[in-house]
Order: sequence, then C-alpha cells, then structure tokens
Amino acid sequence: MNGLTDDSCCADATVGHDTIRAIQWRDDRLFLLDQRRLPAEESWLYPADAAAVAAAIRDMVVRGAPAIGITAAYGVVLSARQHYRASGDVWQDRLAADMRTLGSARPTAVNLAWALARMQQRLQRAAADPVAELLEEARQIHAEDVEANHYMGELGAGLIDNGMSVLTYCNTGSLATGGYGTALGVIRSAWQAGKLREVYAGETRPWLQGARLTAWELARDGIPVTLMTDNAAAALMQAGKVQWVITGADRVTANGDVINKIGTCSLAIIARHYGVRFMVAAPCSTLDLSLDNGDAVEIEQRSPDEVLNLAGRRIAAEGAGAWNPAFDVTPAELVDCLVTERGVVRHPDRTGVAGLLAAGQA
Amino acid sequence: MNGLTDDSCCADATVGHDTIRAIQWRDDRLFLLDQRRLPAEESWLYPADAAAVAAAIRDMVVRGAPAIGITAAYGVVLSARQHYRASGDVWQDRLAADMRTLGSARPTAVNLAWALARMQQRLQRAAADPVAELLEEARQIHAEDVEANHYMGELGAGLIDNGMSVLTYCNTGSLATGGYGTALGVIRSAWQAGKLREVYAGETRPWLQGARLTAWELARDGIPVTLMTDNAAAALMQAGKVQWVITGADRVTANGDVINKIGTCSLAIIARHYGVRFMVAAPCSTLDLSLDNGDAVEIEQRSPDEVLNLAGRRIAAEGAGAWNPAFDVTPAELVDCLVTERGVVRHPDRTGVAGLLAAGQA
Repeated sequence: MNGLTDDSCCADATVGHDTIRAIQWRDDRLFLLDQRRLPAEESWLYPADAAAVAAAIRDMVVRGAPAIGITAAYGVVLSARQHYRASGDVWQDRLAADMRTLGSARPTAVNLAWALARMQQRLQRAAADPVAELLEEARQIHAEDVEANHYMGELGAGLIDNGMSVLTYCNTGSLATGGYGTALGVIRSAWQAGKLREVYAGETRPWLQGARLTAWELARDGIPVTLMTDNAAAALMQAGKVQWVITGADRVTANGDVINKIGTCSLAIIARHYGVRFMVAAPCSTLDLSLDNGDAVEIEQRSPDEVLNLAGRRIAAEGAGAWNPAFDVTPAELVDCLVTERGVVRHPDRTGVAGLLAAGQA
Repeated sequence: MNGLTDDSCCADATVGHDTIRAIQWRDDRLFLLDQRRLPAEESWLYPADAAAVAAAIRDMVVRGAPAIGITAAYGVVLSARQHYRASGDVWQDRLAADMRTLGSARPTAVNLAWALARMQQRLQRAAADPVAELLEEARQIHAEDVEANHYMGELGAGLIDNGMSVLTYCNTGSLATGGYGTALGVIRSAWQAGKLREVYAGETRPWLQGARLTAWELARDGIPVTLMTDNAAAALMQAGKVQWVITGADRVTANGDVINKIGTCSLAIIARHYGVRFMVAAPCSTLDLSLDNGDAVEIEQRSPDEVLNLAGRRIAAEGAGAWNPAFDVTPAELVDCLVTERGVVRHPDRTGVAGLLAAGQA
C-alpha cells in the first residue's frame, strides 16, 4: 500500500523536501502508516472503526501531538458513519461513547481533546446525517495543520541565521503531524532556504523516534542528518556544534510551560547553560489555557518494558525495574522562542501565550 | 567457568553486597568476564598473550578505567612470561612492543598508562627473570584498587544523609574496577549502612552499561535498582527524586575537570540546575596532572555503528550518520565533591587536586 497519495492535504508534498503523508483519507478509508515498524518496513493500517483508531493511537501506530488529533478526528468520521447507518435511535450515544474512547487513548497531548471538541461542535450544527460534514471538518483540521506547519516553518526559519546548525529531538515532522512538521517543518524550511550547515537529531530513547523516524523522514526527503545519543547533548553544545535546539510540544500551558517528549527539559537546561537558543514550534491547537502551568499536566507513565526491552528483546538485566515517564515539563523561562502559526512569542509567558489565542479569536 | 574465585583480591567479596570479580588471575591465567555478553550470558575469556589482552580492552570485553589498568598490568605479566622464556635476547624489545600495544588499546582513561608505568618501574628494578615480580606488582595494583574502592565507599557514603536517593551512571562497580567499585562502591557502602532510599541508574547509551551491567551487578548483590533512559534526568531531578548524582571518572585533569562516559556532563549541568549534588568517585590513579584541563584530553570517537545498531541489528534509518564520542568533559566547577582514596576534595580545583597527589607522596 505504499505510494498512496492524499488528495486533500499534500498539494505541495512532492516538492521542498516534503514527500511524506502518514495519515491519509482515501477511498472513504483512513490509512495510517504504522510508525512502530519504521524504518525497517513501510506498512499501512486502515482501522475500521473508532476503537481501532483509539488502539492505533494508544499503541503508537501514529504518534505526535498534531497527528494524534487529526487521526482522532477521522476516527469520529468512521464512528459517525458506522453508527448513523446501523444504530438507529442510539447512534448519537454510540458516537459519544466512541469519542470518549478516542479522547482517552493517550493523556498528555492536548491536540487530541482539541480535535475532538472541534468535531463535537461541528456535529452539533450538522445536518441529520452528519457524516459528510464531519469528514469535511476532519479534512479541514488536517489541511489547516499542514498550512500552519508551513507558516511556522517560515517563521522559525526566519529566526535562524545562515550557516547555523541545529539539534532536534524526537520526531516532529510529517510523521508527527498532518504533514511537513512543526520543529522539523522549521528545519525543512531552513534547509530549503540554504541556511543550515548541519542537522543533529537525538535518538530519543526509549522509542527511538529520532533514530527510527526523524532519520527516516529526513533521509527520505534529502536532508542530511547526524544522529547522536540523547546523552551527548552537553558534549555537542560544549563543542559549539549547534546554535539552536528545536523541538515540538505536546501541550503548552497558560504560563508557557512546555510539555514534550521525555528529555526535552534536559536539552533546554543544557542549551541555556551553553547559551544555545531553544525554540519550540507548535500549532495553537497545542496551547492549553485551561491549565495554569506544567505541574497540572498528567504525564503519561508508560510500561517499564519499553526501557527494559528493545524490539521485543530484553536489553536490561533481570531484576531491575524502570521508571518510564513519556514526557517532561520544560519551564517557560528556558524557552527562547515559541513559534506558532499565529506568530512568534519570544520568552513566552502568560501574556504572550494568551495573546496568541486572543489574536486567533479577533 | 563461572564461580571462579580470585585468590588475591576478594577476601570480603561474599559479604556486603559485593560478590563479583570480573578480572581474576588464577591457575597462572588471566580470566576476564566478557562484559559484552552481559546480562544474557556469563562467559569468561582467558587471553593468551598481550595482544589478546589489548584486543579485550579495545573491544570492551573489559571496560571501566580502573579495570582497564588492572587488566593491562596482567597483560604485561603474560607478555613477560611469553617473551622471557621464548624470545632470547630480544625479549625486552618484545615486551616493550607489547606494552605499547596495551597502552594504545583505548585512549581516554589514564589508568591504563598509569598501570603500565607502574609495571615498567617494577620491571626496571626486577631480577633477571622478572615474571614473578611483575605478577606480584599486577596483583598489588589489583588489590590496592579494591582497597581504595572500599575506602572511597566509606568516604562517599559519609557525604550522604539517611533517606537520600541517588542517580548513578554508566557502570562503576566491580565490573569496572578491581572489585567493589568507585561510584558504585559509594552506593554499596551507603546501602550497606542503610542510608539509601532508592538507587536510580541511567541506561547509558549507546553501550547500555547502566542497563546491562549496573543493573546486573546490583541485582546480583541484592541492591534494588530502577533504570531510566538517560534523557529522563531532568524529570527525575525536577520531581525531587534524587539528592545526589554519583559517577566515576576516566581521567581527572590538573584543574579538576572530569572526563567520563558521554552523558556525565549533561547530568552535572542538570544537577546544578536543580541543586542536586554531584559526586565523582575515582582512585588517584585516575588523576592526570600532566594535562592542564579537559580540553587537552583525547576524547575517543567510536564507530557510528554503535549508535545506528543495537546488538547487531540496525535500529536507525538507513541514510543517517551518527556522532559517537565515548566520553565528555565535565568542568570542575560543576563537581561538588571529588572522592578519592586519599580523601574528599570539595569543589575540586587545581589546589585540591594537587593536594591529593602531594599527600600520597608525603
């Protein structure tokens, strides 16, 4: 099933170091590139119902905050289509139950709740048969994300001087979003503009999103990348090899704290120590003004097995336990620039974050 | 060949959470526990000559700065025995060549050069047949290392308050030394004294010495350990889960800079950020006053394959390169305490380091 093309969201997907779309709606089905199998294998799943979509999110077939939101939106379409046709009077109850299942698939990224809330709003004003409108809304969420990423890419690249090198982390590219990427979108744009000397990527234990996904995506799109173990960040910055660290976010709270992949806060502290600048690129769907600060965010604790095993093989000694938080909280004061599709906030704080959302509502 | 007992260096190896000796001289042979195969398999190698010993060091059958020095000393014994018996007039040339081979097996840890210099000194004052005296010297280097570790364990444990928890890194235990360990010796002593609430260990990519070796060693010796990915350090300290980070060292330069496993400097920066104290435990054989500061140390660059592959399997996407320095430099000002067998230096600097060596010569 390789070589699928998305007919709604990848008008420019074949140019500009941007050829990958991991979430595709085609032939009335949702296709998800199974990211657990990358880079060894490119295989696609097409979940038949909302429960299968929720499982795909929970089991990390698809991951990355914006991608999770988009996938869940398409999951609502699948649910509405199934239940509106087959469930008679109770179709709305069943759709609501499916939306709860989708919403609880993973706890930390706010984009999931944000996308479901948008689908719910559309449902409330939809015609008797809501399927076509819900599909339109999901496609719109998807297309807006790609558009936001392109604009963030431009804004972020504008902050980078010619000849600079960057470190990125986890995967924030086409695989993590509707397409193009957040932090990796900034890198795509900066590369395209000829600004970047070198791109380093942290391998991102335990899931190795950097080694498996970012490296695959950048190699595929012709952007040279040098991997490193996450623990080499201080040595990298001490040696003056990078001038920016650029990451995405799973949630940004009202005060500007950034919740992102475990290890992000370590990078931010080390960057500050060496005077390396720290950029977070995230669409406004990642902002969560309902939470005051990072302490209020539920940090997903995943199975110790993810640390103790790799690809189904035990790597750690028997008898050891493991602590495996999937995310950490980077305090706002360690972030130099927050890049969104509504503009750049330097030294993000309560005022700056609120201003972004107010601008969107104006 | 499991269950070997070392007749020189493990009088107390069966008590005090201390049962492992990975370097053993027995039946006129050198036995090395093959640390590449841990934790899956406990297999022993007995290198027949100095070239095989050098290969064992280079290929990480044995690793850890003190362990490398001790192993090289036994390698000199094997070389002297071989060449004194078989090489007639040129035995000394051949021994000298073997010592050069041993000395260049790995570049960063100074203990290797230190042990070879001690063996050279003993050789110069030895009888016509130097083998017995060289063996005596090697055994003495080995026994002194274990003794130093026990004393450092006491000193380091004395710095830890009751109920504290610690993070350690890489493997600095019996596997990395003559026995008992440096940083892990401090943890053994503190655990034995009932002081420690929890022991966390960073998995230590790319070789996973924490996950494979430290976890194995602590589980074996009845000290509970919780592994974590290296990138979780900021989250751990932000949550207040540890009060000390304790590491070993491969070299300490005249100004107190600490060269140790890649990732150590990252931990030191993060610890300072959160007010967590940072302890380095290393015998005086690790001090190198010939180098002014960490910038002068040759940092071993290892193969990108160590990052791109794991246990012989490709984990990273094709097309990616990797940057793989084996060590980093932690500036002295980030070290709260340097623990040696000649005492503790708080806030190590030029004066403090020099004082340690002067004390030894008095």
